[in-house]
Amino acid sequence: MSSPQLVNDTFLRACLRQATPYTPVWLMRQAGRYLPEYKATRAKAGSFMGLATNVQYATEVTLQPLDRFALDAAILFSDILTVPDAMGLGLSFAEGEGPRLARPLRDEQAVAALQVPDLEKLRYVFDAVSSIRRALAGRVPLIGFSGSPWTLACYMVEGGGSSDDWRGVKSMLYRRPDLMHRILAVNAQSVADYLNAQIAAGAQAVMVFDSWGGALADRAFQEFSLAYTRRVLAGLKRTGPDGQTVPRIVFTKGGGLWLQQMGELDCDVLGLDWTVNLARARAQVGASKALQGNLDPAALFASPEQVAAEARQVLEDFGAPHAGAGTGATHIFNLGHGISQHTPPDHVQALVEAVHAHSAQMRTRS
Amino acid sequence: MSSPQLVNDTFLRACLRQATPYTPVWLMRQAGRYLPEYKATRAKAGSFMGLATNVQYATEVTLQPLDRFALDAAILFSDILTVPDAMGLGLSFAEGEGPRLARPLRDEQAVAALQVPDLEKLRYVFDAVSSIRRALAGRVPLIGFSGSPWTLACYMVEGGGSSDDWRGVKSMLYRRPDLMHRILAVNAQSVADYLNAQIAAGAQAVMVFDSWGGALADRAFQEFSLAYTRRVLAGLKRTGPDGQTVPRIVFTKGGGLWLQQMGELDCDVLGLDWTVNLARARAQVGASKALQGNLDPAALFASPEQVAAEARQVLEDFGAPHAGAGTGATHIFNLGHGISQHTPPDHVQALVEAVHAHSAQMRTRS
Repeated sequence: MSSPQLVNDTFLRACLRQATPYTPVWLMRQAGRYLPEYKATRAKAGSFMGLATNVQYATEVTLQPLDRFALDAAILFSDILTVPDAMGLGLSFAEGEGPRLARPLRDEQAVAALQVPDLEKLRYVFDAVSSIRRALAGRVPLIGFSGSPWTLACYMVEGGGSSDDWRGVKSMLYRRPDLMHRILAVNAQSVADYLNAQIAAGAQAVMVFDSWGGALADRAFQEFSLAYTRRVLAGLKRTGPDGQTVPRIVFTKGGGLWLQQMGELDCDVLGLDWTVNLARARAQVGASKALQGNLDPAALFASPEQVAAEARQVLEDFGAPHAGAGTGATHIFNLGHGISQHTPPDHVQALVEAVHAHSAQMRTRS
Repeated sequence: MSSPQLVNDTFLRACLRQATPYTPVWLMRQAGRYLPEYKATRAKAGSFMGLATNVQYATEVTLQPLDRFALDAAILFSDILTVPDAMGLGLSFAEGEGPRLARPLRDEQAVAALQVPDLEKLRYVFDAVSSIRRALAGRVPLIGFSGSPWTLACYMVEGGGSSDDWRGVKSMLYRRPDLMHRILAVNAQSVADYLNAQIAAGAQAVMVFDSWGGALADRAFQEFSLAYTRRVLAGLKRTGPDGQTVPRIVFTKGGGLWLQQMGELDCDVLGLDWTVNLARARAQVGASKALQGNLDPAALFASPEQVAAEARQVLEDFGAPHAGAGTGATHIFNLGHGISQHTPPDHVQALVEAVHAHSAQMRTRS
């Protein structure tokens, strides 16, 4: 694959802990319902899966936020449940209700039958990656992603999002840890294969979303989430088809207590939610990882001036980033979780401008 | 008030970091829907508020779990939203839907009108405390409780439990911190008054539930939750009508990242959820506080044998408790959150027996 030179490589450089003239920023779920143009494309597509499985639509919505805001990375528009769907669990999205899996893993037989999916069933994702890369034409890098083995297992056992206590999946974990380990082993292999295929199709960085790792007890997190994230990372290709290093990002929502252990993962970037103090996280993790985060998405409901002030505070919490030659502690600005559908788009504008202006100004301090 | 001598004071001794022959255990929400006898009383009462406001029924359900299990403390049966109800916000419980407040604080005018409630409106709570004390007749001590100022504010602004992002209350926090601070100041005074009246009526320990502190960003937690919990603690009476010290427990769900700061609170016990490693928490907090927790309530869905093994693991995580004269590090066994309504009662039996047996045995190790 021959690719145009990247015009803006600040995100990739910051992932690899190299100095950048300002702090790069992108937002989890930046292509989404808070944008009227997204809703328009979604309406044309008819359904969420109609949107996610159509290469042209997926390309269109991935690029929409970049046309509005000076974001430093694009992220593939897709859903973490494409993998369980390809495994035959039957994904659908009921209007206003979140995801549903028609055939959740409720018994030993279902768990025994689970297999790593045929990647051909996910061809639409890899085609979208290639299509988005072409459409980006080197403006900013493209991030591919997957749910973590544990987070996928949560949905695969429950059959959807939980009421709030993940009763089904945790019952299996405590009663039948053997079944849970079998699911997680299949998931880890599937996620590694899935991300490698995204890399082969052109993803320039990959992110593992452990959205529900924080629901686990200490010890259970290490055994049922972290160990399988580690397995995924061990299975990932280091470089893309153009020979460039592909940075790996791991984000565990609610994982702040396990930062020390996550700091030992074989990845480049740790994503942090808003409960984490960035200065303390930096002191704890050291310069071995870039840190990504961590504004509370609810801060975007305040006025644009207040949003800018909150953004500056997050930058100051991280402190002066590495500015010399070689590698050091770097920061990638993001929210601590996905952007809310209720966010006014002009507040995002204020956020991105404040991050760029203030972080550039921080670098001029002696 | 003249009270019978306590037959079992292990809970109060452990709260005050004194040695006990075994680790005391009680369970958050131990009087509740997992017990068929609770459901029977609830049916007689007609509604949740009918149950909570009737002194005889409240006494009955508070004692039910003690008749089944060898628990070391009773906790007042009530709801944290009694205080907003007394403030005039209009509490109701729709069947299967959780609490609703008819008049949430949606604008500046409503916030300005908010007042510390007339405690006479909460007389039914204090009467229940006195009635339960009489019914207990010294078997075990009685714990009174309240929601934290922040946690009450969450419901008071949202009008109920949140969809999941506490959008209303966080919007106010980020847009109008002045309004949020006014609500929290009124709440702090109300909670202190409320707990003092429970102490006067006979509560032998008090607990502040900061159930939603963990939803806050770092900095916001310190400013909008911790500061007001501190204010409550500063306003509390130190001793009950019988002259005995009344231990104070603070529990912030999802607060593990802020343990250092919570360790500086003027309270006796910190409650911990299941994400916290007890050994690390003990090392961090030192012997200045007793620690209460922290089994994942979902562990109770496993077999009784597995439940017992998980309970032993929690005890071992805390390690050998203080065993000599004077004060030192002590542990009170509990779940990391309220018990699930889906818990089989005989699994609770297995839990309580395992805690008592194993913790007594741990004290015989040289």
